[in-house]
Amino acid sequence: MPLSLGELLKMVGLGAVALTLGVEWLDWLARRLWLRRGPQGPLKEVLFFPSPITCVEHLYSPARALPCSCPLPHGMDTSFTRLLVHLLSACVSLDLCVFSFSHMELSRAVLLLHSRGVAVRVLTDRDYMSISGSQIGTLRRAGIYVRHELSKVVHMHHKFALVDGRKLITGSLNWTATAVQSNKENVIVTEELELVRPFQDEFYRLWEDSDPANHTHQTPIATATKGLVTHS
Amino acid sequence: MPLSLGELLKMVGLGAVALTLGVEWLDWLARRLWLRRGPQGPLKEVLFFPSPITCVEHLYSPARALPCSCPLPHGMDTSFTRLLVHLLSACVSLDLCVFSFSHMELSRAVLLLHSRGVAVRVLTDRDYMSISGSQIGTLRRAGIYVRHELSKVVHMHHKFALVDGRKLITGSLNWTATAVQSNKENVIVTEELELVRPFQDEFYRLWEDSDPANHTHQTPIATATKGLVTHS
Repeated sequence: MPLSLGELLKMVGLGAVALTLGVEWLDWLARRLWLRRGPQGPLKEVLFFPSPITCVEHLYSPARALPCSCPLPHGMDTSFTRLLVHLLSACVSLDLCVFSFSHMELSRAVLLLHSRGVAVRVLTDRDYMSISGSQIGTLRRAGIYVRHELSKVVHMHHKFALVDGRKLITGSLNWTATAVQSNKENVIVTEELELVRPFQDEFYRLWEDSDPANHTHQTPIATATKGLVTHS
Repeated sequence: MPLSLGELLKMVGLGAVALTLGVEWLDWLARRLWLRRGPQGPLKEVLFFPSPITCVEHLYSPARALPCSCPLPHGMDTSFTRLLVHLLSACVSLDLCVFSFSHMELSRAVLLLHSRGVAVRVLTDRDYMSISGSQIGTLRRAGIYVRHELSKVVHMHHKFALVDGRKLITGSLNWTATAVQSNKENVIVTEELELVRPFQDEFYRLWEDSDPANHTHQTPIATATKGLVTHS
């Protein structure tokens, strides 16, 4: 039997009431869960250093059959393991802008990413790239694109990394063993677009500014450090 | 004439339909406005340095009758003026945790806040507080609470400030003229609770850890720097 217009309207009306109440209930439930779990949204994590020295082998080969036999503590979640996890999460690109880079484990991670096909670019300070223990030469010899601050009087003092162009790692921490293991330092890891985007833009600007091809009149600078400069 | 149950349900149903459509339309409108204005939420600002040197007198006395007659450029909004504006916005407290502090203008701002009754605490590095041009002694002589890293082998390398316990200023930038005017540096200013809270906790932890009263067995360290330590 066909429905009359009145009955149809009644049904639609009742359906709308049920829908409205259902949506309100879901909203109430979502808010309760949200309040319990705290505000969600893009990743925001803060790491403080110094960090204890622990074994990090499981981060490089999570599926290995035998546990690592080294004497360091195992299975600990530290600021440094968190930093390494975020770094190793790169699938496409790693843009690194760091004043001083001598940390062996961080160098190993960057080299691993490069060997996996991740597009790595490193921008560093002119003076600090050649200090004892610097990993910049190692990275460059592995074929990683490296540029450095061209001015003789200015320091490239940033300490940030952009993972896949969407995750920002930034703070006071230089990529050195002293910074990681001894100093009081901080690192923010975030995917907050309003923070990531300006750092992306700044990296591109600094990368172009550090292209020796744009500084033809500064031949002595470019020549002196030619061994460590690779054009992208 | 009283309404029948059917008519009542029909009216309620139609009302619910109208309400649902109205809410949907408002939601659509809000989203359009939101997209135009960009994502809102807590303050998130990124500043890059070096910053041009400009006159900042108007930030100290916005209501002065005559414009400043100094030869510096006026009325410019730079990274440094933004930093100063955020710093001078402190009404209740300023917790400062900075490796190196020799910038005269930033020192002036901190002294002004102190004179206004803002509760200022400064935590700094042991070695760098006594370098040439350091403002730490000036702050301490003005009566500001100052503590420093107590260890001889560790650097307090943070560069962050907490304004009124709710605004975080952090980055690579030491509070020096070289950092502000020459180096490539970054500063994040945010009121994002998930970022501010960990820094607050860390400041309190470091402040307590740097209390010489808690290091009675390290008398030589505490005594050597007594002049620059004020108990809170």
